[in-house]
Amino acid sequence: MLIFSTIYSTHWFQTTIELSQKSRGCHLVTKEVLSKISPELSKFKVGLATFFLQHTSAGLSINENADPTVRADMSMTLDHIIPETLPYKHDDEGPDDMPAHVKSTLVGVSLTVPISNGDLAFGTWQGIWLNEFRNHGGKRRIVVTLFGQGK
Amino acid sequence: MLIFSTIYSTHWFQTTIELSQKSRGCHLVTKEVLSKISPELSKFKVGLATFFLQHTSAGLSINENADPTVRADMSMTLDHIIPETLPYKHDDEGPDDMPAHVKSTLVGVSLTVPISNGDLAFGTWQGIWLNEFRNHGGKRRIVVTLFGQGK
Amino acid sequence: MLIFSTIYSTHWFQTTIELSQKSRGCHLVTKEVLSKISPELSKFKVGLATFFLQHTSAGLSINENADPTVRADMSMTLDHIIPETLPYKHDDEGPDDMPAHVKSTLVGVSLTVPISNGDLAFGTWQGIWLNEFRNHGGKRRIVVTLFGQGK
Repeated sequence: MLIFSTIYSTHWFQTTIELSQKSRGCHLVTKEVLSKISPELSKFKVGLATFFLQHTSAGLSINENADPTVRADMSMTLDHIIPETLPYKHDDEGPDDMPAHVKSTLVGVSLTVPISNGDLAFGTWQGIWLNEFRNHGGKRRIVVTLFGQGK
Repeated sequence: MLIFSTIYSTHWFQTTIELSQKSRGCHLVTKEVLSKISPELSKFKVGLATFFLQHTSAGLSINENADPTVRADMSMTLDHIIPETLPYKHDDEGPDDMPAHVKSTLVGVSLTVPISNGDLAFGTWQGIWLNEFRNHGGKRRIVVTLFGQGK
Repeated sequence: MLIFSTIYSTHWFQTTIELSQKSRGCHLVTKEVLSKISPELSKFKVGLATFFLQHTSAGLSINENADPTVRADMSMTLDHIIPETLPYKHDDEGPDDMPAHVKSTLVGVSLTVPISNGDLAFGTWQGIWLNEFRNHGGKRRIVVTLFGQGK
């Protein structure tokens, strides 16, 4: 789909959403996120959606939206790659703390997704993941910014 | 280079490009990507280019554009970090499948590159990589969105 | 905070900043970066800030802005995950070279941060990190692009 146009106005929408507390692990949150921004998202013809997680011990990613074993395996693998048994100095908040900082850095806290005709331009199998790396992470806040051409 | 200006129009360009099927490994695709967007890219004075891969078992990254041994070593290292031998539950599509999901998450599927005077503002050694993590990944689609001030 | 508005102008600001040479390791650079862009940043009511590192052997990330042991542990852990002892072919520039390319790919070179009322919309504990993966990386250049609605 090809759009090229000069426009005289750019629409902006920015809000902070809060996701409910999640257990440690990888969670598919596309519906939860979209439920909080759908009316505004639908107003964009072409644009971008950015999702910025305001935390240092959780991560945001895009991966499979179907088989839940992918999420379980992802969490297992990240625990394998970044084990709790390394000689961390930063351990005040427990053995899950420093590994969570590393996982957050490797997975990332920021997503940029194109908007096309009122929807996020995902491939068939893509969804938004909230990756909770702490045992008790609490609610997680995401700043959502949508911008582009209105319909 | 310093530009500050108030403008009355923002140009937008969005298209889905398709990269040819690649073997498993890391591939330098700057020319292939640019060949599909160069005319439109050249029209921007200042802006941003976003590249969004619509897949969950491949990744997009920015790294060295010269020595091919860097790409071979990258692929070898990712295989070392995320081995096929972990006790994955998600294995329907073969031993390359779940590791591909993990690599996609760690490498990422989204790139945001500044546009300056009609070109991507890369450093001397930077290029766009398509990282194919499946043995037979097929064609890979990328949604390209360019926006900014026209020349 | 919720903003939806149609505007007739988008402000753009783009510049290349240079960070002073850093030792190998993870460095908190929020103040250094902001000192170079604060006047312009303060002019935006809502928008986005993108930071693009023009290098292939260093990385940009967002993580803890307080306890320095987090930075020391991050560097230690990345060295553990991507050891210098793997059978790399790309070794002309020394044993720190190829691991630096891998770390750069996994950590990333691009940050997208929302702007809200003249400031980066960070969570309480978030700051910008320059992750130097080479023993002698030299000065590091970042292309900063700010865009959005002016105040």
